[in-house]
Amino acid sequence: MRNLDAHEDYKVDSQHLAKSLRELAGNFPRPKEEYAAPYGVVGYGEAWWPAELAHLWIPRLMTEGGTQFVLQGGLDLGAAAGAASAAEASGARVVRIGFGGKVDVSIEPYPLSPYQYLRFLQEATGESEAGRRVDAAIELLAVELAPEIRTEDNPAKFFAWSLVERIPVWVVSERYVWLAAALQQTFARVAGSLSVAPPPGSLEFFITALEARHEQGDPLAAVVVGDDECTRLAVEILESRVDTVLELPRLPAEGLIPEMLAAWYFVAWAAYYLAILYGRDPADAEVLARLREEA
Amino acid sequence: MRNLDAHEDYKVDSQHLAKSLRELAGNFPRPKEEYAAPYGVVGYGEAWWPAELAHLWIPRLMTEGGTQFVLQGGLDLGAAAGAASAAEASGARVVRIGFGGKVDVSIEPYPLSPYQYLRFLQEATGESEAGRRVDAAIELLAVELAPEIRTEDNPAKFFAWSLVERIPVWVVSERYVWLAAALQQTFARVAGSLSVAPPPGSLEFFITALEARHEQGDPLAAVVVGDDECTRLAVEILESRVDTVLELPRLPAEGLIPEMLAAWYFVAWAAYYLAILYGRDPADAEVLARLREEA
Repeated sequence: MRNLDAHEDYKVDSQHLAKSLRELAGNFPRPKEEYAAPYGVVGYGEAWWPAELAHLWIPRLMTEGGTQFVLQGGLDLGAAAGAASAAEASGARVVRIGFGGKVDVSIEPYPLSPYQYLRFLQEATGESEAGRRVDAAIELLAVELAPEIRTEDNPAKFFAWSLVERIPVWVVSERYVWLAAALQQTFARVAGSLSVAPPPGSLEFFITALEARHEQGDPLAAVVVGDDECTRLAVEILESRVDTVLELPRLPAEGLIPEMLAAWYFVAWAAYYLAILYGRDPADAEVLARLREEA
Repeated sequence: MRNLDAHEDYKVDSQHLAKSLRELAGNFPRPKEEYAAPYGVVGYGEAWWPAELAHLWIPRLMTEGGTQFVLQGGLDLGAAAGAASAAEASGARVVRIGFGGKVDVSIEPYPLSPYQYLRFLQEATGESEAGRRVDAAIELLAVELAPEIRTEDNPAKFFAWSLVERIPVWVVSERYVWLAAALQQTFARVAGSLSVAPPPGSLEFFITALEARHEQGDPLAAVVVGDDECTRLAVEILESRVDTVLELPRLPAEGLIPEMLAAWYFVAWAAYYLAILYGRDPADAEVLARLREEA
């Protein structure tokens, strides 16, 4: 029987994802030159979220002068290449980041790559102070959530146990743009499991979506990130309709982007432990590599 | 036993949603004056999707001159009011559409209201030609999908039967921005049921999210909208992992927005019939009205 506190449990982790999680803070490509403003950012495949995050300080998708960042996260059926050509025609300097053809800055496909795209962009566009706050939060959590911290003291392990054979429903503060979908993506990549991100206007979704079926015993777990009027109302609505409500602990992060990255990093650890409990390799490399050859 | 072809089945439809569906084409508030360009559009609550659709021809969220449309779809904890004040301070003429305080154009809360917001915006900003194509598609479908068309000839009834006690996973062509989340919203409002919209980068989600649990028998149905390389690959991936794959029939629509609205309208009918099969009132009025008093 697995218990998450025994060394043998972790043998299934063929790519040492725990090591990558633990050493994540600071592990990203540094810009080696200056990039001229104005900036534009578009992101594809696994890099869609860092592009959305960057729009919190870079308001343009495409720019006609300055620097156009194209985050090339694969599986996009040519969309990134199309965006890069369009930008070149418009006179911007195009910087391609990611993997596949012709990248200027290489980031390998990887469930934790959103962190790397984000940190590169922060350093390249004058946001390194916010970047340092992201790293500070992740460094603190890396110690608290590591495998050697036993289940009774490790909230990520507790979350994993609570999510076994359940489908998480992400209940996220309205301030955290796109975070629910990012958690859905990473939970799929690492835990190999399905979860539900609500559409915008999440309150009306929560109150209506479980009307007809809520006595049919879908094994749902509401996972709450952030504490505001919206999440409090959502919890009131969901309490009687899901198996369990889990609230993320208060995380040691300051500022909007650091808070989101800290929540994402917490969920990545919880997903990691859930994969271990399922006896599943938390590396997703093989199946996606095959698909990447096709798409 | 309900069969969708008997008059008695429909008694549960207390608000006559079938009539509203049937008479939807053309049922929207007409602009009574000219609105000066440039335009900006933001949308909240149930009106988030028409704002995203409008961004296909109106690239700005907020504008400093011209006309700022604020779609006030409720349940936004004051966000629409905040956007309206910000726009007024910046010198734009603010036009508030929807319900709640101080609206200029009234649209009642209603599961089919996305159509009404969209059509108003199209007429108000010089897009009435695309609007006519939306209406033409919906008019044709209104005849084909109506309750008096028996199950063997009515694909919306067939979809409803196929979705009983299953959770739809929306597999949507990458061209159809935000459509998966819009279907998730409307399916919740009308059928009272849960469904799953993938995050952006949907191919990697489909291939990873069902790894660990796909032998556990979650009763999933992939619902496919549009036919392109992305949906074809998704179907290949999902075929062995879900209970059933349902492809929307080819719909009689021309152009991006008409195609999306036609798909949405088809799913609204399917959700309506599913509510009838569950014996659930497809009107969602009561529970949302209570929530609106709080939020």
